[in-house]
Amino acid sequence: VDKEVISSEMMKEIDRCRQALDITAAGRDAALVCGGDPGIYAMAGLVFELAREMNHAGKIEIIPGLAAVNSCAARLGAPLMHDFCAISLSDLLTPMELIEKRLIAAAEADFVTAIYNPKSKRRTSQISLAQDIFLRYRAPETPVGIVTAASRADESIIIARLDTMASQEITMRSLVIIGNSQTRTWDGLMVTPRGYQQKYGF
Amino acid sequence: VDKEVISSEMMKEIDRCRQALDITAAGRDAALVCGGDPGIYAMAGLVFELAREMNHAGKIEIIPGLAAVNSCAARLGAPLMHDFCAISLSDLLTPMELIEKRLIAAAEADFVTAIYNPKSKRRTSQISLAQDIFLRYRAPETPVGIVTAASRADESIIIARLDTMASQEITMRSLVIIGNSQTRTWDGLMVTPRGYQQKYGF
Repeated sequence: VDKEVISSEMMKEIDRCRQALDITAAGRDAALVCGGDPGIYAMAGLVFELAREMNHAGKIEIIPGLAAVNSCAARLGAPLMHDFCAISLSDLLTPMELIEKRLIAAAEADFVTAIYNPKSKRRTSQISLAQDIFLRYRAPETPVGIVTAASRADESIIIARLDTMASQEITMRSLVIIGNSQTRTWDGLMVTPRGYQQKYGF
Repeated sequence: VDKEVISSEMMKEIDRCRQALDITAAGRDAALVCGGDPGIYAMAGLVFELAREMNHAGKIEIIPGLAAVNSCAARLGAPLMHDFCAISLSDLLTPMELIEKRLIAAAEADFVTAIYNPKSKRRTSQISLAQDIFLRYRAPETPVGIVTAASRADESIIIARLDTMASQEITMRSLVIIGNSQTRTWDGLMVTPRGYQQKYGF
């Protein structure tokens, strides 16, 4: 098949999306590939934003994929069985006050909370802030799962506690999942019951 | 291949999980299949809860899949590009007060909010309650996406507004996604910008 592969560096998202849109505007098909689910903290939104600005007329189709919340939850057991939220700690595009507000809301309303971009070389304090906020509302022994490089050769899976979470090995390739008040560990796994046992007994 | 297929009715989740665990306890492999991602409001957690109660010793592996948040977001455009949460309106296993508390937290902290189990034949008032709560914090014209029977032959996709959301066709097969304060509609799509344009201009 007549297929051309164009690679780009990290952090060049805007250029990459624009390039794909330029190709389709010129009448060819383009597939823009990214890791995870393009619709969750990835490139789907940027494509539409740029397409709108360019008055792009072509059809854009988003193919969903497995986001880190899907794949990391599966590696940890079943932490997301009840209401959950996803919060990115990156303040590159979001003011820190809004991130903090969302952490407080998530902690207070007992959401299982998946933390994207928990830490980078430059950005190290946010994960401690998240820990402090959650400790105001949840028990110190609340299970926290940390999955780094999910499904890769160097994958690492840690089940920690809320009070020791920030001192664990966490990198920009990690997803951190903080359990809710019902989440338990069992056999090295992290499970949030949905309430069947309370309702029906077993 | 020597494969036996056992089907079961809806609402028989406990029996079905127990049956799969019994098969593996007897030394055979079993694959338990469900729609969506087993780890998101589906059967992964129940399997672990029952396995624990049975002192089940076998290995349990969860294979992640596309949850409704993944597939419905892709059909709507790119609504989940920023912090989001998932809330089920089913009060079968969760007290209504907790559901309401989470709706308020999600609305107040400007999360894009995916609503699972928005309505059933028996349960019709919760979606109006959700609408009322969000209207306290978000503009009436906030985009709301309603995807029913995603990727099926009878799929329906509606882009509504927050102030008309509850009167749309919503069933137990629908997922409702309420945008945050930045979510916009474009060309019949629903897009939440991540902030690139504000930061970098285009």
